[in-house]
Amino acid sequence: MILLRSHHNVGLDDGERMPRQVNHDERRRQIAAAVWRLAIQGGLEQVTLRQAAAEAGVSARLLQYYFGTRDQLLLGALEILNNEAEQQAKDRMASLGESPSMRAIVRGVLLEMLPLDEQRRDRHVVYAAYFVRFLTEPALAAVARSASPELTNLVGDLITRAQALGDVAPDIDTAAESAFLTAAAEGLQTQVLLGQCSPEDAVSVLDRQLARIFDAA
Amino acid sequence: MILLRSHHNVGLDDGERMPRQVNHDERRRQIAAAVWRLAIQGGLEQVTLRQAAAEAGVSARLLQYYFGTRDQLLLGALEILNNEAEQQAKDRMASLGESPSMRAIVRGVLLEMLPLDEQRRDRHVVYAAYFVRFLTEPALAAVARSASPELTNLVGDLITRAQALGDVAPDIDTAAESAFLTAAAEGLQTQVLLGQCSPEDAVSVLDRQLARIFDAA
Repeated sequence: MILLRSHHNVGLDDGERMPRQVNHDERRRQIAAAVWRLAIQGGLEQVTLRQAAAEAGVSARLLQYYFGTRDQLLLGALEILNNEAEQQAKDRMASLGESPSMRAIVRGVLLEMLPLDEQRRDRHVVYAAYFVRFLTEPALAAVARSASPELTNLVGDLITRAQALGDVAPDIDTAAESAFLTAAAEGLQTQVLLGQCSPEDAVSVLDRQLARIFDAA
Repeated sequence: MILLRSHHNVGLDDGERMPRQVNHDERRRQIAAAVWRLAIQGGLEQVTLRQAAAEAGVSARLLQYYFGTRDQLLLGALEILNNEAEQQAKDRMASLGESPSMRAIVRGVLLEMLPLDEQRRDRHVVYAAYFVRFLTEPALAAVARSASPELTNLVGDLITRAQALGDVAPDIDTAAESAFLTAAAEGLQTQVLLGQCSPEDAVSVLDRQLARIFDAA
């Protein structure tokens, strides 16, 4: 259906007819990745329709068919980034094994926020490039919020469950500690990106606090 | 001297001759503030020489006399922001009274990182607008680093001194806790800007950790 639309509703040049195997989603992903690369190189000011098309190796017309206006391109590229981030996070969490401890899950959620590899680094730099727009554009802000759906609450729930299991001392204020842990992970992300803190030190800072929260039990 | 330069080395239109009382620094500050406002409204992509001049109410030529290229404008506006931030921070620290406790000083340093009023909010949004550039341009990155000169070390020193005074329990790892506190303050800044956390809750999160570190002694 979508492929049909792309061939029949828009008068693409013959040279741009896509081979059947390149489907709609793949093409959108290819263009979104071009937006991410430009944003990483120089912020959103690098992301004009023309430059995004050139970076993706498609015509401006094809890009506009897939995304529409520049605002729609920025929104769409962000949504695709979020979807991939979610999948990658799930994969990494799955790699924790069959029945990971609450502590391992909390740690996994927090490490997802650190730029520990190129994938996560690139993702966080793209978010940083969008940041000011999150503050001024409700549509983008909604996507940004859905990216970390109540992360603090998630971490809080996990620590509360660990507390019920006896893995966390009863005097630990789980809401306060989860707010602190997620804030610290967010701040460490910035510090690692700016080179003020090494990735290893950032992990170590979080591990020490996890030890405080979990080991006292 | 500087005023003379502005009149003799550049052929300004008569209409742009500044009254004597508007000095060089004031004019640069006025233009820098225009850059900050544009950056807050829509990121650095809003900061063209033309738009900055219009926002500041000066000609593009006058703006270029004061700052030079766009890159120099971005750098200069950031330096002026940092200088003001430093002065404002000093003023707020001075308001802590004659001989504040180590804990009050640590708290003051951390609260400087939170967008607790319009002044600090605006400052942090401007930094956010510059963020991607910090990663790619050494000149800007140097200014960014000088903005928080080893903040973690400063907090660490203060907690270590408090420990020596007996205000912090001897088993507290001051380096680890200061790294955690500054990272959390940085992350809370982001969360408050995005509306994920209220300013009051952000202060409360930090106060609870300060209580843990200082009250156990």
